[in-house]
Amino acid sequence: MRGGVVGCGYWGPNLVRNFLGQESLTGTSCFDLDTRRVDTIVKTFPNVKPCRSYDELLDNSDFIAVATPVHTHYQLALQALEAGKHVLVEKPMTLHSHESAKLRKLADSKDLVLMVDHTFIYTPAVQKMKELLGNGQLGRALYFDSVRVNLGLFQSDVNVIWDLAPHDLSILLYLFDERPVALQAQGRDSFINGVHDLAYLTLFYADGFMANLHLSWLSPTKVRKITVAGDKRMIVYDDMESSEKVKVYDKGVERIDTEELHNEVRVQYRIGDIYTPALKNEEALRKETAHFLDCIENGTSPMTDGVSGEWVVKILEAANQSLKSGNRVELDSE
Amino acid sequence: MRGGVVGCGYWGPNLVRNFLGQESLTGTSCFDLDTRRVDTIVKTFPNVKPCRSYDELLDNSDFIAVATPVHTHYQLALQALEAGKHVLVEKPMTLHSHESAKLRKLADSKDLVLMVDHTFIYTPAVQKMKELLGNGQLGRALYFDSVRVNLGLFQSDVNVIWDLAPHDLSILLYLFDERPVALQAQGRDSFINGVHDLAYLTLFYADGFMANLHLSWLSPTKVRKITVAGDKRMIVYDDMESSEKVKVYDKGVERIDTEELHNEVRVQYRIGDIYTPALKNEEALRKETAHFLDCIENGTSPMTDGVSGEWVVKILEAANQSLKSGNRVELDSE
Amino acid sequence: MRGGVVGCGYWGPNLVRNFLGQESLTGTSCFDLDTRRVDTIVKTFPNVKPCRSYDELLDNSDFIAVATPVHTHYQLALQALEAGKHVLVEKPMTLHSHESAKLRKLADSKDLVLMVDHTFIYTPAVQKMKELLGNGQLGRALYFDSVRVNLGLFQSDVNVIWDLAPHDLSILLYLFDERPVALQAQGRDSFINGVHDLAYLTLFYADGFMANLHLSWLSPTKVRKITVAGDKRMIVYDDMESSEKVKVYDKGVERIDTEELHNEVRVQYRIGDIYTPALKNEEALRKETAHFLDCIENGTSPMTDGVSGEWVVKILEAANQSLKSGNRVELDSE
Amino acid sequence: MRGGVVGCGYWGPNLVRNFLGQESLTGTSCFDLDTRRVDTIVKTFPNVKPCRSYDELLDNSDFIAVATPVHTHYQLALQALEAGKHVLVEKPMTLHSHESAKLRKLADSKDLVLMVDHTFIYTPAVQKMKELLGNGQLGRALYFDSVRVNLGLFQSDVNVIWDLAPHDLSILLYLFDERPVALQAQGRDSFINGVHDLAYLTLFYADGFMANLHLSWLSPTKVRKITVAGDKRMIVYDDMESSEKVKVYDKGVERIDTEELHNEVRVQYRIGDIYTPALKNEEALRKETAHFLDCIENGTSPMTDGVSGEWVVKILEAANQSLKSGNRVELDSE
Repeated sequence: MRGGVVGCGYWGPNLVRNFLGQESLTGTSCFDLDTRRVDTIVKTFPNVKPCRSYDELLDNSDFIAVATPVHTHYQLALQALEAGKHVLVEKPMTLHSHESAKLRKLADSKDLVLMVDHTFIYTPAVQKMKELLGNGQLGRALYFDSVRVNLGLFQSDVNVIWDLAPHDLSILLYLFDERPVALQAQGRDSFINGVHDLAYLTLFYADGFMANLHLSWLSPTKVRKITVAGDKRMIVYDDMESSEKVKVYDKGVERIDTEELHNEVRVQYRIGDIYTPALKNEEALRKETAHFLDCIENGTSPMTDGVSGEWVVKILEAANQSLKSGNRVELDSE
Repeated sequence: MRGGVVGCGYWGPNLVRNFLGQESLTGTSCFDLDTRRVDTIVKTFPNVKPCRSYDELLDNSDFIAVATPVHTHYQLALQALEAGKHVLVEKPMTLHSHESAKLRKLADSKDLVLMVDHTFIYTPAVQKMKELLGNGQLGRALYFDSVRVNLGLFQSDVNVIWDLAPHDLSILLYLFDERPVALQAQGRDSFINGVHDLAYLTLFYADGFMANLHLSWLSPTKVRKITVAGDKRMIVYDDMESSEKVKVYDKGVERIDTEELHNEVRVQYRIGDIYTPALKNEEALRKETAHFLDCIENGTSPMTDGVSGEWVVKILEAANQSLKSGNRVELDSE
Repeated sequence: MRGGVVGCGYWGPNLVRNFLGQESLTGTSCFDLDTRRVDTIVKTFPNVKPCRSYDELLDNSDFIAVATPVHTHYQLALQALEAGKHVLVEKPMTLHSHESAKLRKLADSKDLVLMVDHTFIYTPAVQKMKELLGNGQLGRALYFDSVRVNLGLFQSDVNVIWDLAPHDLSILLYLFDERPVALQAQGRDSFINGVHDLAYLTLFYADGFMANLHLSWLSPTKVRKITVAGDKRMIVYDDMESSEKVKVYDKGVERIDTEELHNEVRVQYRIGDIYTPALKNEEALRKETAHFLDCIENGTSPMTDGVSGEWVVKILEAANQSLKSGNRVELDSE
Repeated sequence: MRGGVVGCGYWGPNLVRNFLGQESLTGTSCFDLDTRRVDTIVKTFPNVKPCRSYDELLDNSDFIAVATPVHTHYQLALQALEAGKHVLVEKPMTLHSHESAKLRKLADSKDLVLMVDHTFIYTPAVQKMKELLGNGQLGRALYFDSVRVNLGLFQSDVNVIWDLAPHDLSILLYLFDERPVALQAQGRDSFINGVHDLAYLTLFYADGFMANLHLSWLSPTKVRKITVAGDKRMIVYDDMESSEKVKVYDKGVERIDTEELHNEVRVQYRIGDIYTPALKNEEALRKETAHFLDCIENGTSPMTDGVSGEWVVKILEAANQSLKSGNRVELDSE
């Protein structure tokens, strides 16, 4: 099997390095409109074959990894799928959710693997959280709260939600089976008109569950923290911690309705131990690329498939709508 | 001058203790409908005079401190003002903003001091922040973000916004002269119908400035953190820190519009030193009670006057409205 | 049973308050050479009986708590024991270990309870550590390391070892059954001749186990941290943490001697989960005073008896010797 | 100028990478007894010339960087100097201080640059500390305290002092002009006979200044912290902090001798602000290699010269002696 990478900017070289580390690959090619970037990659990785056009890349590859700016994802992925190639595409998957849907259906119809590069899903931390939630340990899910803020980097083409929220949204969608039914976004564009640099995004679920994301390019400190709370246990995932990233709090809340209390309601707390599981020391992208090849070779279903990619885009789209109108936006569930 | 405290539950004894420490007072009396509470106070502070009715308390006092449940504040403060007594009232000031307005006007017309017990304003940390902002060091104000979350304590009569937000709102209103023009609240009532235990409150200002409050009784960890950011400097106030509560980050963001960039906009960061000012070791309530007496004796204007108390109530009212309707609520500015 | 407290300075009022809270006591008296201190206590606690001499205190008490400066402990405790009173004495127990021995033997011969106020032993944190060590979970004990440093307060009569080390030494002696056979102290007296303000104290054990204490009045930050390591698990007790004071690290080290390695020795690490037990919210002194009364009434053996008090003094004495000579000092084990 | 690297294990590739980044070099060669390591380096850095013997390396180089095991440093550096090559040698410089002295004198006599790879000296953090001390801001120096502990990695040939202390010792010697006159080491060899895995090292100075190093391979947590205290200010350098590595505490201690106090001595504290300087984002090894080339080309004196290298070895030697004898060891000052 031969791999191809289109886009050799910030993320492309990481993909190339990881494909080179996979034994089942017989060759890796790359292409970028900016030929200097191709030259740089080849200088670092002499075994990579440089291509002078996207067509040449397609000819030399059994699958394509798309690591270009987001507005080009749809066209490049479409072309690859039409040429019968499996596709791994950067997040966010496309600019519009209907494009994501079209790619997804095309891949299905041609029996090709379409995977979205939601890298965080492959981290030991998120895998551990999924495992913990799978045990039903958390009880009734209460909320998901995430803070992803730092100083910079401003991007001129996308706002802070499109830049940072895909990480948290992909984790949220991976951890819980339910899907949000509506959202409300708030934010401000302090420096560039129309490009929000600070935003709060709230997602509503049919059963009352709530997710809130705080996203900012304007914070003096860097924070990457997710809290997932149930009525029996609560998990905090702090990605800035070097060794204690995931903590499980054996804390809970219980509602007590008793006749003795004359129909009053009492709420009780339980404070227990904290458990900090040891996490494997693995590179997420290494695990992800191996998983992608496994999906191609053995027909495994991708953990970050086109459906999850499309949901992330659908939410980002709706968030932009809400930022503009100031109103709550309903999300259709199909 | 003689002081009177009505309400001898959780907060009343703190007021009593602080009044006893003020030299200019010749006596302190107290009253509570629950006579056992009065007995307890008198046992701890033998010099306090117990009263058997609110009228008796009024007769024995030149000012009244109201430390009863919020729904009784209006009636008790009204009676005190009508009897010609100065008033210090717990936060939130009243259940309805029109009540706060009425108290405020009555105090004005009778030339009486009406102060609200927004204790945080008198902490060394908030005083230092005010001083730092006064210097104009922060540049253009960008946002105010606060997180005040912990596990419990549920209250049956008020929701988490009414319980916790008065702290952050009073600080916000004290630090900045501008007033919000609208707000949006989101939340959920996970355990008791209609009593929200998790909420996010966003305040909008005419000039684009934004304030966001995260309030929760359902967090596994206790957080009390406020970030105030300008384009020249940013301040973080972490009340859980024992000795380094306030940090000033000499970090900023700058917009550069240049012809060379062909009308493109560039945004630049500046990362400088961090400065952690030493704070005095003072009890806020001690400073507040002294300030209250100073207002009475010397006609000083209260730092936490009826206007600020009314604004806090107005915002809490609107937050409840927004929680119910799910919509943005405009705030009138008068 | 009637209690008596001699010494009404810093610690005495805490003892008085806790004795007043014990139901089995019918009365509490107090005495201090400085009569103003007695007056202050009586003003705060009107139920306490003030005495005008130590003899009067002895006459009115079934037990005596000694909370005076350390050089007076021996004489006051001796007098109390001779008068047939049970004794609770502040740490360090006496100035010289032979005095501690004499008190211990006297109490034994008269069947009186003699307890030393090593308060830390009664904290939920140390109790939890003892429980964890009792399970044998730690494996072979490797070392005990403690850091107890802050800025001030200088004392003019004792050095930093006598001021701070009793806490760590009492914990060390409580957690492990073995006793040190020698010690070495290093330090400097930066400000007052002969009064060391910075010290490092190393204790040696027959089986190779080692304890090191870092003690300082000259540190810019306040640290109170103890690490206890075995080859199977390691515990860190950080007393500055508000809610996660004790952490158990499931980490270990193993030596592997194999023939395959040609008589080479290999050392292997194991990195597992971290467990942070929930601790009760109890006042140590409350638990200690109840335990003292229980010892008197029911003949229970004190957890912090005269033997442990004598060991602490013996080590402090030897530490001073080592500071002076610069040499290692052997500790006799009787 | 052409560079040569001998030793292609853990550190060698870092040296190669940094030499390749220096424009003034026309070529870089490398050699290792293990030819597979040479092959690996050449695969990663195709521009590096592999040599098949040390003589070949010497022929192709104007300077030699020695990154081999410590017991080979002396012989390899000696050969290089004798061949007229400048030398950069890994720390610790040699196994014995008389070897370091000999290398130092040889380099002097032949006018060659001899530099020791004390990398930490070139970090922005240590450079900032040196700058702060240079201003005399700290007042009278009181002590240096360092903690460098973690779990593993055991080495079979050197003990924990030789493994970890060179970092702290090089920083200590760089920050202060005075040299220690004696030392005392304590430690235990818990797993391999004679290879200490836990150690405390105290250095004594003529003027009372004291340095203490805590070194361990047996700590459940990783700590890299240095405190440098003067009577006017104190600095904490925490290398595990990602962004706030160096903090200057405006805290001090003052001795007051007054007649009013009847010849008593009073010690007073001053608690001021904390200042956290922004540090440059530079790779220390990049700065060091550039400095080495500058020394060769322009005759600049190395910041980490043979004298400092020899002092580090002299202290390590004496520490081993003290570990064995259990006694204090005097350091000669020549």
